[in-house]
Amino acid sequence: MPWFKNLIKISKTITNQSSSYKSITPLASPLLAQFLQFTKQYSTNDHVVGLEATKSDQKPRIVVLGSGWAGCRLMKDIDTNIYDVVCVSPRNHMVFTPLLASTCVGTLEFRSVAEPIGRIQPAVSTQPASYFFLANCNAIDFDNHMIQCQTVTEGVETLEPWKFNVSYDKLVIASGAHALTFGIKGVNEHATFLREVHHAQEIRRKLLLNLMLSDVPGVSEEEKRRLLHCVVVGGGPTGVEFSGELSDFILKDVHQRYAHVKDYIHANEILSSFDDRLRVYATNQLTKSGVRLVRGLVQHVQPDKIILSDGTNVPYGLLVWSTGVGPSPFVNSLDIPKAKGRIGIDEWLRVPSVQDVYSIGDCSGFLESTGRQVLPALAQVAERQGKYLASLLNKVGKEGGGHANCAQNINLGDPFVYKHLGSMATIGRYKALVDLRESKEAKGVSLAGFTSFFVWRSAYLTRVVSWRNKIYVLINWLTTLVFGRDISRI
Amino acid sequence: MPWFKNLIKISKTITNQSSSYKSITPLASPLLAQFLQFTKQYSTNDHVVGLEATKSDQKPRIVVLGSGWAGCRLMKDIDTNIYDVVCVSPRNHMVFTPLLASTCVGTLEFRSVAEPIGRIQPAVSTQPASYFFLANCNAIDFDNHMIQCQTVTEGVETLEPWKFNVSYDKLVIASGAHALTFGIKGVNEHATFLREVHHAQEIRRKLLLNLMLSDVPGVSEEEKRRLLHCVVVGGGPTGVEFSGELSDFILKDVHQRYAHVKDYIHANEILSSFDDRLRVYATNQLTKSGVRLVRGLVQHVQPDKIILSDGTNVPYGLLVWSTGVGPSPFVNSLDIPKAKGRIGIDEWLRVPSVQDVYSIGDCSGFLESTGRQVLPALAQVAERQGKYLASLLNKVGKEGGGHANCAQNINLGDPFVYKHLGSMATIGRYKALVDLRESKEAKGVSLAGFTSFFVWRSAYLTRVVSWRNKIYVLINWLTTLVFGRDISRI
Repeated sequence: MPWFKNLIKISKTITNQSSSYKSITPLASPLLAQFLQFTKQYSTNDHVVGLEATKSDQKPRIVVLGSGWAGCRLMKDIDTNIYDVVCVSPRNHMVFTPLLASTCVGTLEFRSVAEPIGRIQPAVSTQPASYFFLANCNAIDFDNHMIQCQTVTEGVETLEPWKFNVSYDKLVIASGAHALTFGIKGVNEHATFLREVHHAQEIRRKLLLNLMLSDVPGVSEEEKRRLLHCVVVGGGPTGVEFSGELSDFILKDVHQRYAHVKDYIHANEILSSFDDRLRVYATNQLTKSGVRLVRGLVQHVQPDKIILSDGTNVPYGLLVWSTGVGPSPFVNSLDIPKAKGRIGIDEWLRVPSVQDVYSIGDCSGFLESTGRQVLPALAQVAERQGKYLASLLNKVGKEGGGHANCAQNINLGDPFVYKHLGSMATIGRYKALVDLRESKEAKGVSLAGFTSFFVWRSAYLTRVVSWRNKIYVLINWLTTLVFGRDISRI
Repeated sequence: MPWFKNLIKISKTITNQSSSYKSITPLASPLLAQFLQFTKQYSTNDHVVGLEATKSDQKPRIVVLGSGWAGCRLMKDIDTNIYDVVCVSPRNHMVFTPLLASTCVGTLEFRSVAEPIGRIQPAVSTQPASYFFLANCNAIDFDNHMIQCQTVTEGVETLEPWKFNVSYDKLVIASGAHALTFGIKGVNEHATFLREVHHAQEIRRKLLLNLMLSDVPGVSEEEKRRLLHCVVVGGGPTGVEFSGELSDFILKDVHQRYAHVKDYIHANEILSSFDDRLRVYATNQLTKSGVRLVRGLVQHVQPDKIILSDGTNVPYGLLVWSTGVGPSPFVNSLDIPKAKGRIGIDEWLRVPSVQDVYSIGDCSGFLESTGRQVLPALAQVAERQGKYLASLLNKVGKEGGGHANCAQNINLGDPFVYKHLGSMATIGRYKALVDLRESKEAKGVSLAGFTSFFVWRSAYLTRVVSWRNKIYVLINWLTTLVFGRDISRI
């Protein structure tokens, strides 16, 4: 034990260090101390601390729940000269969801599709009264303009999760939706969703493990076939894009060793929101790539097979579940008017029954009284709502309505109007679909093939949030083209 | 449930597919079927299958245990026109260990330091009788030229690990060493090593979680200080480089928010193999960067603090254990002569007591009878041994000694000679140490500062195995310089 023999401490070093150490703890700056006032409140039999209400001589505080497309676009555009921003979310980054399927097979790196909040809105890491809190919001006290949160501490065995309160001047609920399982038994236990980076990591690890195990002597032919079956339930863009990526991976990168891998999509029809011509094209292309499309009603999911309602057993090695989203338990728990289960909003994206609360993205929908349809749960809806609401809140703040209960007499300007810009989906083999019609019934341009693959990639590349990730996505695509996909299982 | 309503199967699609499907299963090619002969043998009361001994008209088979520096360099240089290669390892990639510390804080991507075996030796994924098996070797039957393996199936709940045998013509044991814990209680449970990519991922996740939790209201000042203390036990290059990287991360990337993070190194002395002048320089530089060097004997590791032998308690949020390596349980289990606990080898890297067995890297050491010293457990020793042994085995194969028990009368040429090329360590803030002396006593060039930082980076960049990773490491370094380190916790 050479490192541990000598017990003499280098005391000079410690003395030098401890003086500078004291000057920066416990709080980084007097400014921070001034703003961070811990309030001790008695609530639900626990001492609960947190951020108390802002004073009239302080900047008003916008609290954003969630860090998806809606919340992040909002935070990006918020004028931090007017507002302090506090983001509460269980993850410290935004996931660039349209490219997530590509990370499962190594076309893109995981980090290339994750954008830290601090890069989207630098104020949360540099401004003393702006924060990012790694936590979930459990409840909202609309009357007292306060939310109750609980920290996410998974992975830290020495800390119990704790509760804290955050008072808001404006609250933006952008906490998103949950994956639908239709109450089918075994889905949560055995299937993998494809909504977060850790889902993509799990899919990648399972896929590579199955490929390698299928090559080891001693596994039966039946087990081998099962290990190499990938089943995707749901024929929306995520399911189709994952199948396309998987086929590319099999055909181009592991073909020589694992040519017998097959994937299946269980869905009534694929890409139901797309133009009929495009759907036929996609079906043909996917079939050519070795994807088998099967229609069926899943009844039960077991660890190694799914059982359809007609009694068919479908063994699988990897099961990806991608059948759309519905309201989250948190949204269900809120006692405010809903629209199709979502938080009901008016044309200015406000929750009209309470003061200073807004909701955007997949968790919200227009109230029936607005006479508008609930918008689809799409990234482009969420992003446009975030952009609109940021400019609305900036306007309100400039006109002196930033603090709680101060915005009643401010003209909000034009209401939010959504114009669908079109849908895109890649289907593998350098091919994609682009549907530029405003709605399913409208006429317009729809493209398929290499041109639209090129349009698809360019469109995404220009919309990835930071320059760092733009560069990385481009480099990932280039290296995949030159060197193939990476198959290290780390 | 729009996707599940319709139960009609697209029968045309299925029929088209199933014909092509049959033609490529169960085995990818007749060639593969011809070589992959499953032998059913009765062993330890189980049916054990595997690869049986090669026939004289087949290529001889080299079996390599491990996928570290030694095994991978060997596989890279093996002439696959002469031999088939079978690699047995619990991970399907080689870790470029000298750069691993950089991945913990986001300077480099995890994937940039992992090289898949298939990229190092393409034969394992393209040749029908060459394989990579994701498994551990449990035992070696030296008399019958056969190893017994067990698959690694962590993460696959539907499969029990199973055993299989692989016969060898030549066996190369390059299974590496284990991290030393000196029997100190709690190290395995609470500390993190830094030897594999998943260790670096764990360190990164813990570090970012601790940083974020320390900012949430409700955590006591004492807990906050604990969360932000990173303790490194061991003052070797890994410990010093990790501390340097961590300081850079704190000073450059999260300084504004988390200025009060401190790290400590507990070690008797740092970089004991380096030139004294360099060690003083390193100590000063690290101290300037906020690293506190403490000498002490660790007695006990608890979930939130370490206890030193003088009774001092040192609370920590993250504990990295890097105190060198010693023999693995597998090496201990082998009934062959040892040298300081390692597998004893002669000057040609053979295990002299048995036929056709070689050992290289951290698991092997020169027998006392050779009159040579056991070489240090360094990447450069392992790599040079792998290179030497590949050329020796290629020579033996060319002269007709490739098959089992056929190499007795072949002249092996010059024995292996190790010449130390020097040591390098980076210490953060664009500074590094380069010690180009052949041994601790010898005279020679030693450098410190920016020049040697530049030498350090260039040296590593040219030695990363594939062009893909060379490009990625360069791009990672450039983007870190321009955009800073990534702090998304995925």
